[in-house]
Amino acid sequence: MESEFINWLRQRLPPSSSLRLGPGDDAAVLSLRANAGCVVTSDMLMDRVHFNLADCGPRRAGWKSLAVNLSDLAAMAARPVAAVISLAVPRDGGMQLAVELYEGLLPLAEKFGVAVAGGDTNSWDGPLVVSVTAIGEEVEHGIWMRGSAEVGDQILVIGTFGGSILAKHLDFTPRVSEALKLASRYTVHAATDVSDGLSLDLSHILEESDCGAKLKLDRIPISPAANQLSQRESDSQTPLEHALSDGEDFELILTAPPSEAERMLDEQPLDVPITQIGGIIETRGLWSLSPAGNLESLSPRGFSH
Amino acid sequence: MESEFINWLRQRLPPSSSLRLGPGDDAAVLSLRANAGCVVTSDMLMDRVHFNLADCGPRRAGWKSLAVNLSDLAAMAARPVAAVISLAVPRDGGMQLAVELYEGLLPLAEKFGVAVAGGDTNSWDGPLVVSVTAIGEEVEHGIWMRGSAEVGDQILVIGTFGGSILAKHLDFTPRVSEALKLASRYTVHAATDVSDGLSLDLSHILEESDCGAKLKLDRIPISPAANQLSQRESDSQTPLEHALSDGEDFELILTAPPSEAERMLDEQPLDVPITQIGGIIETRGLWSLSPAGNLESLSPRGFSH
Repeated sequence: MESEFINWLRQRLPPSSSLRLGPGDDAAVLSLRANAGCVVTSDMLMDRVHFNLADCGPRRAGWKSLAVNLSDLAAMAARPVAAVISLAVPRDGGMQLAVELYEGLLPLAEKFGVAVAGGDTNSWDGPLVVSVTAIGEEVEHGIWMRGSAEVGDQILVIGTFGGSILAKHLDFTPRVSEALKLASRYTVHAATDVSDGLSLDLSHILEESDCGAKLKLDRIPISPAANQLSQRESDSQTPLEHALSDGEDFELILTAPPSEAERMLDEQPLDVPITQIGGIIETRGLWSLSPAGNLESLSPRGFSH
Repeated sequence: MESEFINWLRQRLPPSSSLRLGPGDDAAVLSLRANAGCVVTSDMLMDRVHFNLADCGPRRAGWKSLAVNLSDLAAMAARPVAAVISLAVPRDGGMQLAVELYEGLLPLAEKFGVAVAGGDTNSWDGPLVVSVTAIGEEVEHGIWMRGSAEVGDQILVIGTFGGSILAKHLDFTPRVSEALKLASRYTVHAATDVSDGLSLDLSHILEESDCGAKLKLDRIPISPAANQLSQRESDSQTPLEHALSDGEDFELILTAPPSEAERMLDEQPLDVPITQIGGIIETRGLWSLSPAGNLESLSPRGFSH
């Protein structure tokens, strides 16, 4: 089915100025901004692991597969340029499944000017596997990294947290525009996106930057979905616990020097709230301030791969 | 297992001058040659489809997974820069499998200066899936494409064809050095690598270039493996039929203007023979010259995805 599928794809794809050569050759050729770093990320999503195809359908699976990769580019403040998409589809109905999966992801690609540069489509007897590699370019203000947090930085988050399993993990819009806007206006030291859980992803920044964090737990922005989930009889976690440990929020965590953080908090330049949840400290680990004013150790929790 | 695996990988990977930021952040950052096209290709390989893990073991599966992608870069005469590797591994023994798979591909990466820039490693209940995206940079002499063959071009191949199933499909060295050497010395119009079968891959050049080809069947370089396979009692194909239709030779097909082709044939600048097997004609399709001197239609055969 691959040649039939490539023919469909070549008809379907909109033209793109950054794509010198698109699907149908041995490789695609992209034009990146001269001397900009080429930012590359890849995520593989499997049916019944990252989504349940029978429940969500191929379009939402396609959207999510591209979105998680664009979220990684957003976490670097890189501008998305292109994506290559490799599929393993079940033999029975594979062509239709592949077409619908692309129909699900193409609106997201168009939204952020991402050229679908090609990929590889295979049939097999196993479940659907989608592997997307997204390629971005460094913007003028450089790359955000996990390892650049500094003692004294404030810790900011954009959006609200917890309960993404109710719907957001399939339908979220990656924070690409927000990251590019912040990168162009403010100094950010370190950043990551929340894929494994707010506390666990923050701990990745701390490990890479060799420092610790003091969190103000009453400041954590809790999503309506976290409240909703917590009210279920079968659920044993508080909304705050959901916000700290649920995976796949795909919001951003940033650290910035106090003056820049305060400017962001005052100006609130995004459509989504920016919230200060704590600060970077020298003592390693993740800490919260107890009611008595003591530092208490907090275990990073979330989805461990 | 992912964080444990990333720790292993960061220890294991050699430093690379083209990798500004390697595994462990949300994305990797590469430095490409200024203003060079960024050449991207992706192939997904699945256990029991592209290799049989129980027979070949994880090291050869790893080698092949990177090699097929570098072969696509060779077909464009692009210089390999980096690869990202996404895995779905069975839960039981997944870490060990992932480590051995990398140990299989790292010598090939080192051979061609390919930085392993990162990827994604997941456990699941299904069989091994490996998705590699290779990124190359355009060299000074530009990119080879399938669609640039011209009427009057000679058709050249490097290497010998057929019977790769006996071993070569797992152990081949992609023609990266050969392609870069030819690109730096000769004008090549069109090129592709042989993954689906010599006649079928040649037909891809003909379709993209809107032309035909006349083949001299007695010139097709037949590999010892094609002869060996043909002699098996269970085999019903001639060595020539194997050479024309067997997939996964991962040799190159080139078209070049006659003067350049003759220079290549005279100089034989590679360690592997360059052979002229026919010429590009205006009449579409694939043709062979019969003993009586007539053109006879030849059906492109090979592995149809």
